[in-house]
Amino acid sequence: MSLTEEMKAVARRAKLASNKGARLATPDKNRALLAIADGILNGRDALVAANRLDVEAAEKSGLAPAMVDRLKLSPKVLETMVKGLREVAALPDPVGTVSRQWVRPNGMRVGKMRIPLGVILIIYESRPNVTVDAAALCLKAGNAVILRGGKEAIHSNQALGEIIRAALQAANLPTDLVQVLQTTDRTAMEELLKLDEEIDLVIPRGGEALIRYVAEKSRIPVIKHYKGVCHVYVDEFADVRMADDIVFNGKVQRPGVCNALETLLVNEKIAAKFLPVAAKRLHEAGVELRVCPETAKHLGGVPSKPATEDDWYAEYLELILAVRVVPSLEAAIEHIDTYGSHHTETIVTESYSRSQKFLRDVNSSCVFLNASTRFSDGFELGLGAEIGISTTKLHAYGPMGVEELTTEKFFIYGDGQIRA
Amino acid sequence: MSLTEEMKAVARRAKLASNKGARLATPDKNRALLAIADGILNGRDALVAANRLDVEAAEKSGLAPAMVDRLKLSPKVLETMVKGLREVAALPDPVGTVSRQWVRPNGMRVGKMRIPLGVILIIYESRPNVTVDAAALCLKAGNAVILRGGKEAIHSNQALGEIIRAALQAANLPTDLVQVLQTTDRTAMEELLKLDEEIDLVIPRGGEALIRYVAEKSRIPVIKHYKGVCHVYVDEFADVRMADDIVFNGKVQRPGVCNALETLLVNEKIAAKFLPVAAKRLHEAGVELRVCPETAKHLGGVPSKPATEDDWYAEYLELILAVRVVPSLEAAIEHIDTYGSHHTETIVTESYSRSQKFLRDVNSSCVFLNASTRFSDGFELGLGAEIGISTTKLHAYGPMGVEELTTEKFFIYGDGQIRA
Repeated sequence: MSLTEEMKAVARRAKLASNKGARLATPDKNRALLAIADGILNGRDALVAANRLDVEAAEKSGLAPAMVDRLKLSPKVLETMVKGLREVAALPDPVGTVSRQWVRPNGMRVGKMRIPLGVILIIYESRPNVTVDAAALCLKAGNAVILRGGKEAIHSNQALGEIIRAALQAANLPTDLVQVLQTTDRTAMEELLKLDEEIDLVIPRGGEALIRYVAEKSRIPVIKHYKGVCHVYVDEFADVRMADDIVFNGKVQRPGVCNALETLLVNEKIAAKFLPVAAKRLHEAGVELRVCPETAKHLGGVPSKPATEDDWYAEYLELILAVRVVPSLEAAIEHIDTYGSHHTETIVTESYSRSQKFLRDVNSSCVFLNASTRFSDGFELGLGAEIGISTTKLHAYGPMGVEELTTEKFFIYGDGQIRA
Repeated sequence: MSLTEEMKAVARRAKLASNKGARLATPDKNRALLAIADGILNGRDALVAANRLDVEAAEKSGLAPAMVDRLKLSPKVLETMVKGLREVAALPDPVGTVSRQWVRPNGMRVGKMRIPLGVILIIYESRPNVTVDAAALCLKAGNAVILRGGKEAIHSNQALGEIIRAALQAANLPTDLVQVLQTTDRTAMEELLKLDEEIDLVIPRGGEALIRYVAEKSRIPVIKHYKGVCHVYVDEFADVRMADDIVFNGKVQRPGVCNALETLLVNEKIAAKFLPVAAKRLHEAGVELRVCPETAKHLGGVPSKPATEDDWYAEYLELILAVRVVPSLEAAIEHIDTYGSHHTETIVTESYSRSQKFLRDVNSSCVFLNASTRFSDGFELGLGAEIGISTTKLHAYGPMGVEELTTEKFFIYGDGQIRA
């Protein structure tokens, strides 16, 4: 069988399984999720052995220690996976829910009912826990999933795939609801990305290069986010202490993630009061400041570098912060329009009218009033879990949970209506 | 300026206008819609003159009379356009509406608010009324739109574009909210289809060839439907008279549209009772029947042809109907799974449990109980208007109205929350 035929067969099996997956009862799906959790606990030794092959190969190949670390199925990672499965089992099932129903003048009752998307392809890099997390969310929503992990994690992913499929079989569900690709060959992935009749959605998870590559090759809809250039705007009417906490938390608490703060915008009327306080605390935490000329005047002796145009576009993912003084709320919004990435922005203000203007006029996927950008996360916002974050507006925008792995169909009750 | 640069400039202008469009108040948008309606009424003579150029050129080139007819801006077509604009002005504005809000344990209030998609590219064929209909719906939802019509309608579309932009200017809205492309060159369209940073959505409207072409070339998400192979399943427990009316209406009332009936499935237990009645009426209306061997036994002398495998996949769009007798409800659903196009299906039955099984297990975009497939239409289902029908599940599934031209952002009210 050629690679093209092989990938087509994978996608066809997924599609057939998805027809059955869409009709599964909630308790059956939950039973399977709990069986996977048990399978991981019982299969721990085999998993760790498979994982050791990947880790040793990675070390031998000279992969950066941080990357090797991401690869490891430590007892803690396994525990988190098991906990995650049980949490997903406990989530409400979106499939079959009806959000609204209305009556037409001719008496037809029209409603919208949630159904699974069908077949989802997840393309990801080194972390093997994605294999389980993504499979769990897709399964809960009644979808079939094809998982294509990175080559560094191939043994770990295969071992996890075997556990998942054994659990599906034991729970009497179609095993093809979850397929872990045997190959990490790029041409295989490219074949899959052409199959828009069989696969409904592609979610790439990883670095910007991977995501751009997938978006370019795919004929299937892709949900993606390239980067998070998150802003905090400290308004003229901000509570200075609250603003200081929100800025510090956004930048320092975990700088390497996409919802960390990257650019601070400060209203000129509060700059002299706010900036020296904030700059001192950030500096003491090791944050490098890249600032506009106006900001430089208000740093109270804290060292800084001049910001260049590139800094306004930058997603640093480290302890660097771009800072700009703006003359107005409107100028802050314009800065975000121009340089932002539609991920997450915060306004800090006590002014009702200004807060409402910011919340209404800034159309990033998450817009906060008086809270840290770090809450821009499916779990923190109450979605129960997160399959990814979308910064493109089609289908889903912002953190995506189980519901975003479904769509709605129309269903209509009539009593013999025909069109005149 | 090269074509690439020119198209990039078009898309950039649209993007800038869309930022303003997203912030427009509802009365301002409605004022512009009514101004366009007035502009069409007042500019009628110029419109008809421009349209005459297209019609004459089409006739000269030997275009089929039906195609020439689609091109004509008759008084009736103009009236319908004006009426449509006023109806869209009267529709509720989805932008800013909040579907739900919930509270997190840390006190943050999280909500989802509707916002425009941004920039929409509509690619369509001969009918010039699409220029106005699509512009109106995009505008109502706060989007900027780029319209690329067919070359046969170029003069009509340009004239309509001028009226629209004059009305926008008079209403003090950015004129670049609506741009009608000056060129119908395919390479220009292909340039636009690459601009996924500027354009948020592409909607092709036209024949399957056009849609497949756009889907293949586009890096921007495409909402599409290829075809409508709609089914009616007459269940064992159907009301025979109701079933007869629904089948007849689905096939005969307007056979050339995507929600017309193409395949009739009949439960074997009702075949002898139902088929002779239905076949006679269909035959008298000029419908050709292509039937399975079991159906042929129950036609009461009405002529038919044997159906081939191809007939089950066919979207005839004319007075031809494929008919198959199935042993069970499950077999009917399996037939729809195998041959269907996810457009629209109907079950006719008086059985509660069987109706629920069909409504739940058939995941086409519209699933009807005891009503004609011909109601599968945005206006008929109560969306107020229709921009198209999606048979792909991402973002929208089924008829799309104004709301489907928007998305939802997260907005969060805090009082100083930071992450631990």
